[in-house]
Amino acid sequence: MQASVVAVLGRGVVPAGTPVMRADDPGVLGEGLFETMLVRDGVPWLLDEHLDRLAASAPALGLAVPTSLAELVLSACAKWPPELEGALRLVCTPMTAFCTIAPVPPRTLSLRVRTLPAASGLPVKSLSFGPSLTARRWAAANGVDDALWVSPDGYALEGPTASLVWLDGETLCTVPPSAGVLPGVTAAWLLAKAPSQGWRAGHRMVKPEALPAVGGVWLASSLRGLAEIRVLDGVELPQSPHTERLRAMLGY
Amino acid sequence: MQASVVAVLGRGVVPAGTPVMRADDPGVLGEGLFETMLVRDGVPWLLDEHLDRLAASAPALGLAVPTSLAELVLSACAKWPPELEGALRLVCTPMTAFCTIAPVPPRTLSLRVRTLPAASGLPVKSLSFGPSLTARRWAAANGVDDALWVSPDGYALEGPTASLVWLDGETLCTVPPSAGVLPGVTAAWLLAKAPSQGWRAGHRMVKPEALPAVGGVWLASSLRGLAEIRVLDGVELPQSPHTERLRAMLGY
Repeated sequence: MQASVVAVLGRGVVPAGTPVMRADDPGVLGEGLFETMLVRDGVPWLLDEHLDRLAASAPALGLAVPTSLAELVLSACAKWPPELEGALRLVCTPMTAFCTIAPVPPRTLSLRVRTLPAASGLPVKSLSFGPSLTARRWAAANGVDDALWVSPDGYALEGPTASLVWLDGETLCTVPPSAGVLPGVTAAWLLAKAPSQGWRAGHRMVKPEALPAVGGVWLASSLRGLAEIRVLDGVELPQSPHTERLRAMLGY
Repeated sequence: MQASVVAVLGRGVVPAGTPVMRADDPGVLGEGLFETMLVRDGVPWLLDEHLDRLAASAPALGLAVPTSLAELVLSACAKWPPELEGALRLVCTPMTAFCTIAPVPPRTLSLRVRTLPAASGLPVKSLSFGPSLTARRWAAANGVDDALWVSPDGYALEGPTASLVWLDGETLCTVPPSAGVLPGVTAAWLLAKAPSQGWRAGHRMVKPEALPAVGGVWLASSLRGLAEIRVLDGVELPQSPHTERLRAMLGY
């Protein structure tokens, strides 16, 4: 749905194709909120209710909502032909707020529907990164450095922004893509180097309670390289004798 | 992490604060991919591996990946001081691609970690909307108009972009927020009007298999108003005698 009217906080109505979001806005990775409203007779229907919902959700994302959103929305509506229904979207990120109005998509009034298990989405590194950022915020609020996601059947999966890597005997392990995790680039590089350390490489499932007994447990990611897990759910894990060597290999 | 270098496909390096994403770019709602790389000695480490992963994920989002991403990344790196490690983020949306380089955040090398059930995130209308858009794409690919998310214990929750509303006897129902669903503005408006129809309003849980026996099942949302579910998992549902009246009330 291409927008016909675009209004930006502090700038008012701008030409429709104008870029509005900075490259370093956390909104690019999904940190932000939106509302969709029907514009009817030139005004947004249930505007207060939508603004209330947005304001109520903001604390969960640590987002400060500007006070002048209603004004922003109405400035856009003033440019929309009042005889035409419009689809208004209001977007609020940590760095900006903007709204668009486009024609309402065709309505399908009689639906064929299929049920679908509620799930966390595809194992791709998408811009819908909010759940990962929320999990890291949860970790910080709970006095730890990071989270380790666990499947419904109790297997360790990955960190919100890192792959799980561990040494089981002589096998350097990570979780198989079949578990629904994103394949980690740094983890794959480490596993490819396992033979140079006299190890095999393996894709395995592991329960968190088995990790304190292995030869090393790490979170691997592009920016931090290899960070060693030393406390897991309050249980202290022994320091691995291999961490320094692996980190030197990685060059971090 | 504020970006120091920003490069945009087709525009090259631009001043850091320049807006780069259009308001109607589907990337605003999380339709897009990203990769994070370490810039070391002035070049992105494991660039090919990161570009490969991005390209491999693209079909799942129906995304066309431009061929000149490596060039874009290298043009940004050319502006980064080679003696400094950098955090490079490459973002690819349906309408644009851009990359940023910022200083690497401080590394925590010894981690305290807590396990966390893998989940679909918070019940807020966040810009991490990819799973909803993916579910609607899944519905279209499976020959239906929409999806209905179901909880692990078998209860109907909501549509990817709409609330579930149904009439059970004389009670107009929707799912309680305690189920983890986003409170629907249109659904709330309808329930508030229930007494004017001689009905009560109720927040309840319901299993999909109970829905064919009720007096009407709808998906409610701001843009389409009230769409009646007439086929659910292949089972035809009777047409509700109330749909027209409710839709007229809503003004759609």
